[in-house]
Amino acid sequence: MPGEIERRLAELGVTLPAAAAPAANYVSYVEAAGLVYVSGQVSMANGELVKGKLGDTMELAEGAAAARLCAIALLSQVKAAAGGDLDRLKRVVKLTAFVNSTPDFGDQPAVVNGASDFLVEALGDKGRHARSAVSAASLPFGVAVEIEGIFELA
Amino acid sequence: MPGEIERRLAELGVTLPAAAAPAANYVSYVEAAGLVYVSGQVSMANGELVKGKLGDTMELAEGAAAARLCAIALLSQVKAAAGGDLDRLKRVVKLTAFVNSTPDFGDQPAVVNGASDFLVEALGDKGRHARSAVSAASLPFGVAVEIEGIFELA
Amino acid sequence: MPGEIERRLAELGVTLPAAAAPAANYVSYVEAAGLVYVSGQVSMANGELVKGKLGDTMELAEGAAAARLCAIALLSQVKAAAGGDLDRLKRVVKLTAFVNSTPDFGDQPAVVNGASDFLVEALGDKGRHARSAVSAASLPFGVAVEIEGIFELA
Repeated sequence: MPGEIERRLAELGVTLPAAAAPAANYVSYVEAAGLVYVSGQVSMANGELVKGKLGDTMELAEGAAAARLCAIALLSQVKAAAGGDLDRLKRVVKLTAFVNSTPDFGDQPAVVNGASDFLVEALGDKGRHARSAVSAASLPFGVAVEIEGIFELA
Repeated sequence: MPGEIERRLAELGVTLPAAAAPAANYVSYVEAAGLVYVSGQVSMANGELVKGKLGDTMELAEGAAAARLCAIALLSQVKAAAGGDLDRLKRVVKLTAFVNSTPDFGDQPAVVNGASDFLVEALGDKGRHARSAVSAASLPFGVAVEIEGIFELA
Repeated sequence: MPGEIERRLAELGVTLPAAAAPAANYVSYVEAAGLVYVSGQVSMANGELVKGKLGDTMELAEGAAAARLCAIALLSQVKAAAGGDLDRLKRVVKLTAFVNSTPDFGDQPAVVNGASDFLVEALGDKGRHARSAVSAASLPFGVAVEIEGIFELA
């Protein structure tokens, strides 16, 4: 039976995808010293990478949607870290968000709000997090956004 | 009455600005598992963003001054996290510093020293931190520097 | 007498260099709240910086070798943090890897696998870590890779 948070996600029309397995000698999350460190999650929808470069091939709204996908992928990993019970999530502590953009793009915060707004919409106050929003010169496979996160479980 | 650290800041001619409130669904800091995670602080002086691109529109000394402003903003947030008593700061643990630069700029360390030198000048040994200094392709609103930090409170 | 991990490193042909001292007002690592935060380590071999830009002046295999050098440098710092006994390393928790690349480069994961593969080869399961792999617009002195890490000691 889905818990409270997953019922709220369903209201938002969001079903968590299976937590993606990393393709190499790293893992999707590590729990240490009371926190869960989740690997950078790239923008992906229905198993397809969402690619683009803000300021060039991708509009702001699309970038925000890509950031939201990263946040959904982060929650999938947190659910796995919590043994399947997402209600054990106590707090989203910190996001570091990398936006694939041109050198003159300046709307990183609006892009990353796609992730931040979703987390607060889905999780309420426990979704409020510290964050950084910066541009990367480029990202894996040309994806539009990559976000890593630190989470606290109860 | 200002505490010891704020008296030292005053000697250095630094008055902490009011901690900036984030403009979105994130918060300026989260305390978790014994540490304070402070959101990326952008270079800003007297409420005005300090913009520039190192290697192009901004000189090294200006970049270092911008990094120092980020460090001051970080301390403002730490003071808020400490309930107004900055003397509760036990240690600056880690800074991640993003410099807005051209692709061939290589003086990130000298820029970020503007923050590191200030923190040690203001805080002594408790200001010595681990850090990374890298270039971002671009930063929010074209600011010159963005620095996030992890802090330990007593 | 070298411990178990350093004997394994010797089998791999790796001798840890002396932990590099930072050239400024920051330190190579800080231990706080049960974890060791290691400053970004740049690619360096025998005291010489390994410079290059992926997608332009450096091939993928060279980039992976540069990432491996960063991982070796991180272990040198962890050894120093552990008072010289690397066997106290309990877990590599998290790496954030910055690749110096052109704006259209997309093979950051393959570059950073040079570090991830080495850590698992050298440390087994305790070397499996969460990670992010992104491109930086540029890196200090033009180095090819910079990696920071969070480690847990026993």
